[in-house]
Amino acid sequence: MRYLAFIQYLGTAFSGYQVQPNRRTVQGDLCRACEALFACPCRVSGCSRTDSGVHAEEFCVLIEPADEGHAAIPPKKLPLAIAEHLPPDISLIRCTEAPPDFHPRYAAQGKIYRYDIWNAPARNPFLTDRAWHYPRYLDERALSRMRQAAKLIEGRHDFAAFMADGSAIVDTVRTVFSCTCEREGQLVHIRVHGDGFLYNMVRIIVGTLIAVATDKLAPQDVQTILEAKRRVLAGMTAPACGLTLEHVIYPDGLIVWE
Amino acid sequence: MRYLAFIQYLGTAFSGYQVQPNRRTVQGDLCRACEALFACPCRVSGCSRTDSGVHAEEFCVLIEPADEGHAAIPPKKLPLAIAEHLPPDISLIRCTEAPPDFHPRYAAQGKIYRYDIWNAPARNPFLTDRAWHYPRYLDERALSRMRQAAKLIEGRHDFAAFMADGSAIVDTVRTVFSCTCEREGQLVHIRVHGDGFLYNMVRIIVGTLIAVATDKLAPQDVQTILEAKRRVLAGMTAPACGLTLEHVIYPDGLIVWE
Repeated sequence: MRYLAFIQYLGTAFSGYQVQPNRRTVQGDLCRACEALFACPCRVSGCSRTDSGVHAEEFCVLIEPADEGHAAIPPKKLPLAIAEHLPPDISLIRCTEAPPDFHPRYAAQGKIYRYDIWNAPARNPFLTDRAWHYPRYLDERALSRMRQAAKLIEGRHDFAAFMADGSAIVDTVRTVFSCTCEREGQLVHIRVHGDGFLYNMVRIIVGTLIAVATDKLAPQDVQTILEAKRRVLAGMTAPACGLTLEHVIYPDGLIVWE
Repeated sequence: MRYLAFIQYLGTAFSGYQVQPNRRTVQGDLCRACEALFACPCRVSGCSRTDSGVHAEEFCVLIEPADEGHAAIPPKKLPLAIAEHLPPDISLIRCTEAPPDFHPRYAAQGKIYRYDIWNAPARNPFLTDRAWHYPRYLDERALSRMRQAAKLIEGRHDFAAFMADGSAIVDTVRTVFSCTCEREGQLVHIRVHGDGFLYNMVRIIVGTLIAVATDKLAPQDVQTILEAKRRVLAGMTAPACGLTLEHVIYPDGLIVWE
C-alpha cells in the first residue's frame, strides 16, 4: 500500500520541510512517526520544500512503507493511528490509497500560498510567528497600489528577479494564475496561485508589494523588474512566519477519497 | 498619571495572571516592563486572575508608577513605548488616563469568556494550546442539548457546584447574563457573560455542557446540580487552553479614550 495523505503543520519550530542532518524537520518527524507505526523503514515524499518557519494548512505527502507485512493499515484509519506518533505541530488529516505512479510534487498542477500581515500598531500575541507584524496602516490607496502591482505579477513570466540569490534553478519561468490582496479587519492577506514557485518567490513578491504600498516603488515598476531579471531591483524578502501553503491542486479526479 | 490599559496575552507560557514567586506570570512581566520604561517602581492591578494557560483578548490593567518625575509618558504613546519591554506573548493595545478611584476589578460590570473547542477527528496544529481538541462530532442534536442546558445556567444562581473544590470564596452567588453555544466550521464556541466568576466556573460549565451533549447528563440536570450545590455532580473541568477572556465590560462613559 502506498498512502497519499494531507498533512498540516505549524512551521515555527521546524527547519523547514525537508530532512537535514541534526535539524528538526517536518519530513524527518513524519518519517519517524510512520516508521514507529508501520515498524519498518518508510519513504516519505512531499509536494514542496517549504522553508524554515513557513506553515502548511494543506501539504500532500506520499508514504511508502518498505514492508507491508501483516501490519497493513487501511488508509482511512491512518489519521487516527498515526496521531499518537506525531508531535503537536504536525497533524495528518486525510488519507487514501495513492494512484499508480503518483508523486505529490510532480502531479501537482499548482499551489496557493497565503501571506498574512498583521497590520495594526500593536503586536498581536496570538499571531507571533504566524503573521508579519507591519504596523504602518495600509489604507485604501496603498491596497489599490498593491493590487495594481499584483496584476502585473499574474501571467507567464521569467521570475528570476523574484528568486533568492544563489539558487541553482535554471528555468525560472513560472505561471502565476492569480495574485490578490484583501483586508480582513486588521489582517491583510496576499494570495498567490501559481503552477510552481522559485526559492523565496512569494516572500519577495510580498516585499515588493509592500514597497509599492509605501511608494518606494511604483506599481508599474513590477514589469521593469520582471524584464530586468535582477533580484536587487525587487523588494525585500518578507519574513517566513507570515507564509502558509494553503492548497495544493491536483488534476480533477486523480485523488479519490474513500 | 495613573494609566488604564487594555492588554492581550497568550496564556500558554504563563503560570496565570497573578504574580507568584519563581513563576512566569503576566502581572510579573508587565510590571517589569513598566518599571523598565518608567525607571521607577510600578504597581499593576488587573481586572481578573486568569489561570495558568488561559488567554486574554481584552484584559484591563491599572498601571501606577510610584514616581512620575520628568519621564511622564502621554497615555496615547504608552502602547508603542512599552512594546520593546514586553515579551512577544503580551501586547498592550490601548491606553488612557484612569478615572479617579478606578480599579479594573471592582469597576467591571461583567466579563465575557469564550471557550473554544476544536471539534474534528484530527488535531489542528495551529490550535495546540489554544482550543480543546474534542474529536467526537457534536451534531445538531448534541448542540441543541447543550443550548437547553446553557439556558438553565443563565440567571442569578448559587454556582457553588460550578466552583473548584477547595476555593475559599464564601459568597458563591453570581449572575450569568447569557450562555451560548455556536458552531463555526469545525470550531464550537461557548460564551459565558456574567457579572463575576468563581474559580474554574467557565471550565466546569463547559465540562458539564459536554456531559449533556454526550448523554451523560440530561439538560435539566443543570437545575438539580445548581440546587444541590455539589461540585461532584457537575461535569469535568474542561482544559484551560480553550479559555479566553474576550471582553471586560465597564459602565458606559466611565472609560474615555483620548
